[in-house]
Amino acid sequence: MPQASPSAAERAAVISIGDELIIGQSLDTNSKWLSERLTSIGLTVIEHATVPDDLDLLVRAIRRLADACDTVILTGGLGPTADDLTRDALAQLLNEPLVEDSASLAAIERWFTRSSRVMPERNRVQALRPASGTHLPNPNGTAPGIRVSRGSATLHCLPGPPSEMRPMFEDHVRPRLTSPAGRLIRTRVVQSAGLGESEVAQRLGGLMDRHRNPLVGTTASGGIVTVRIRDESADPVNVVDERVEHTVREVRRVIGDAIIAENDRPLPANVIERLRQRGQRLAVVESCTGGTLGQMLTAIAGSSDAFVGGWITYSNDMKTSSVGVPLELLAAHGAVSAEVAQAMSKGGLDLSGADHALAITGVAGPGGGSNEKPVGTVWISLASRDQPPDVRCFRIPGEREAVRIWSAITALLMLDQRLRAVGPARLLRQTTP
Amino acid sequence: MPQASPSAAERAAVISIGDELIIGQSLDTNSKWLSERLTSIGLTVIEHATVPDDLDLLVRAIRRLADACDTVILTGGLGPTADDLTRDALAQLLNEPLVEDSASLAAIERWFTRSSRVMPERNRVQALRPASGTHLPNPNGTAPGIRVSRGSATLHCLPGPPSEMRPMFEDHVRPRLTSPAGRLIRTRVVQSAGLGESEVAQRLGGLMDRHRNPLVGTTASGGIVTVRIRDESADPVNVVDERVEHTVREVRRVIGDAIIAENDRPLPANVIERLRQRGQRLAVVESCTGGTLGQMLTAIAGSSDAFVGGWITYSNDMKTSSVGVPLELLAAHGAVSAEVAQAMSKGGLDLSGADHALAITGVAGPGGGSNEKPVGTVWISLASRDQPPDVRCFRIPGEREAVRIWSAITALLMLDQRLRAVGPARLLRQTTP
Repeated sequence: MPQASPSAAERAAVISIGDELIIGQSLDTNSKWLSERLTSIGLTVIEHATVPDDLDLLVRAIRRLADACDTVILTGGLGPTADDLTRDALAQLLNEPLVEDSASLAAIERWFTRSSRVMPERNRVQALRPASGTHLPNPNGTAPGIRVSRGSATLHCLPGPPSEMRPMFEDHVRPRLTSPAGRLIRTRVVQSAGLGESEVAQRLGGLMDRHRNPLVGTTASGGIVTVRIRDESADPVNVVDERVEHTVREVRRVIGDAIIAENDRPLPANVIERLRQRGQRLAVVESCTGGTLGQMLTAIAGSSDAFVGGWITYSNDMKTSSVGVPLELLAAHGAVSAEVAQAMSKGGLDLSGADHALAITGVAGPGGGSNEKPVGTVWISLASRDQPPDVRCFRIPGEREAVRIWSAITALLMLDQRLRAVGPARLLRQTTP
Repeated sequence: MPQASPSAAERAAVISIGDELIIGQSLDTNSKWLSERLTSIGLTVIEHATVPDDLDLLVRAIRRLADACDTVILTGGLGPTADDLTRDALAQLLNEPLVEDSASLAAIERWFTRSSRVMPERNRVQALRPASGTHLPNPNGTAPGIRVSRGSATLHCLPGPPSEMRPMFEDHVRPRLTSPAGRLIRTRVVQSAGLGESEVAQRLGGLMDRHRNPLVGTTASGGIVTVRIRDESADPVNVVDERVEHTVREVRRVIGDAIIAENDRPLPANVIERLRQRGQRLAVVESCTGGTLGQMLTAIAGSSDAFVGGWITYSNDMKTSSVGVPLELLAAHGAVSAEVAQAMSKGGLDLSGADHALAITGVAGPGGGSNEKPVGTVWISLASRDQPPDVRCFRIPGEREAVRIWSAITALLMLDQRLRAVGPARLLRQTTP
């Protein structure tokens, strides 16, 4: 947050609407997505509020945030059913009647016609908007968005499904949002691995002072500590750039040995890019992660340049039949062992013809642990052409899904380290089995 | 939401704290997790608020929600760095000094000793709490939780990382929360596929009236429409149970043909359970989903009873070399075709020895689309022992990740349909290529 309080014109808030969110049935991903975009424009997001399908609570949340911010984005509550109350909340807030928008009604009818259906009468309600409002077209669904003004605030109401909300924001909201006049915001991100968050903070020292500009903050997730640098001022651009660059140099000076990337791209994207630069390709052989590593890599568009695919060797049979792990190794050492991890990566490398193969085998829990191999024990092996194998054991704390995600990230860090050819393995904390 | 407004004693709110959340760098999953638990206890969650690392905004959010609810759960802001402000916010709100808790300091020092490190001086701040507050032990990290009272409200402050927050909630918060006296809450969930949300709502008709008890609501996600039934009253338990059962029967009567499950378990868990009941096993062969389907299945603990693993055949080479898709098929029809999908599933079935194999090949985008096969074109093939193959084409709207997730869910629905042996394919809307 900047030290001087931003004005209402510079402030934004996000409201997510729905019982399914407030009772914890569904996860709200819209607030994160919208905040990232609002922040990048230069607006200061002061709050995300999630409220139930309750007219009174909804009207109060809108009123409170529209009083504080000139930009309020709402998602959800625009569906055709009786628990979709955004239209009614706007009408009550503005003290206006709802009117049927004939162009929107025609668009909704066309939506059904395109899939050879007749519009259910219930969808007609989606053509309603407050008399002073404007509908935002929705090419991806039946719910048009709604834009209304209240005092100096503009409320942008978008549908809840991300596949409808995101394009509508890009096409009809973003173009109307402007950066606060004269203020310049610069952000930089530095990612590190191998140090705990408090160790990073201790090294950063005074750089993290809350009254300093640029403001420096840290967050930790899955073994990666991200350092965020954010400069906000009305200073000339060259002054700002030099100030930010100076801070980045300071960060490099104190945690340089732990830096894995100076961008905000996810680790899989950086690994894919490093492989692409070297003209190399990767295969994976996954046991306890069951596809998590492949999923992460292929989430990156264009990953096919560097990722050939792999094997999900969840059962022991699959380990033997598909990547040739000898039965004797499984019998002698168990599926979670250095020997099996190494055989998995070697089989994957040889069969795929790739340049690197990552193999993961471990006890993700909650069951399956033993005294010798407790839940969280994970072996990761990296096999590469013309280089010695790298096999390591980790003891990962946390629940099943955390163990799986952390395992996949750690495997990528092992490969990333090899690609960057940095010195001895410090990386994430390793355990002796 | 229940029709009679709940009292403060029955209300709860969740506050998530952190710049990384408010600028959209990290996704808040804590609010969902906590709300699910608070709701199941019988509390009515009225809001999730996410605020930045800003003392003033944080104090204001706590004050506002502590005035409205007797139970407020906060997550985040308990770390060792200068942007961790929960301790200071509590001190300001309560107008109390922060005191060092010697037992907590000793616990933090032990945490570092266990991993053969010396406690950085910076972590000492985590031993602070408001004078009237209580620390909640954290066996999974360095940040103790804090519990304080303010008027009739109790504030439970938990660390941000889920691996620390969740056990602390279960051990030290949940046991102190009690259901509102005399009020009974029953919830039921019915999942459906094959009908749009408005079609489901149209069929449910008056059952969705907002003034009815039980309250019936719908949410749609990834092709599945979930019907939620929630009864809240002070009536005797047999009256409540009969009333809920009556509503479930009504729901069955009107959408019975589309029901895929009468529980709130995710689809992969229900599919694994159905396979287990039949003593059958599944393999997967994934191209555009790149491991997403395997990841979903293996997210279920105990899935190894019914899931053997599979292949991530991301490149054409892998399709040929690992599951034996003939080169001629790829050349003649392209990787995204009925022929290749079918060859992938047949190869997977034969090589794995499983009872069913699901194969997915498609254009997830954003690139790679053509007039003939636009982005979102996905072929899914199900091969089963002693049954004819089921091969279908879908045109899936949305962005890359949505296409991938929807593809994996649709594949599971195809298998689920076969396992439940329901009649002709209605399922999700299918397209003619």
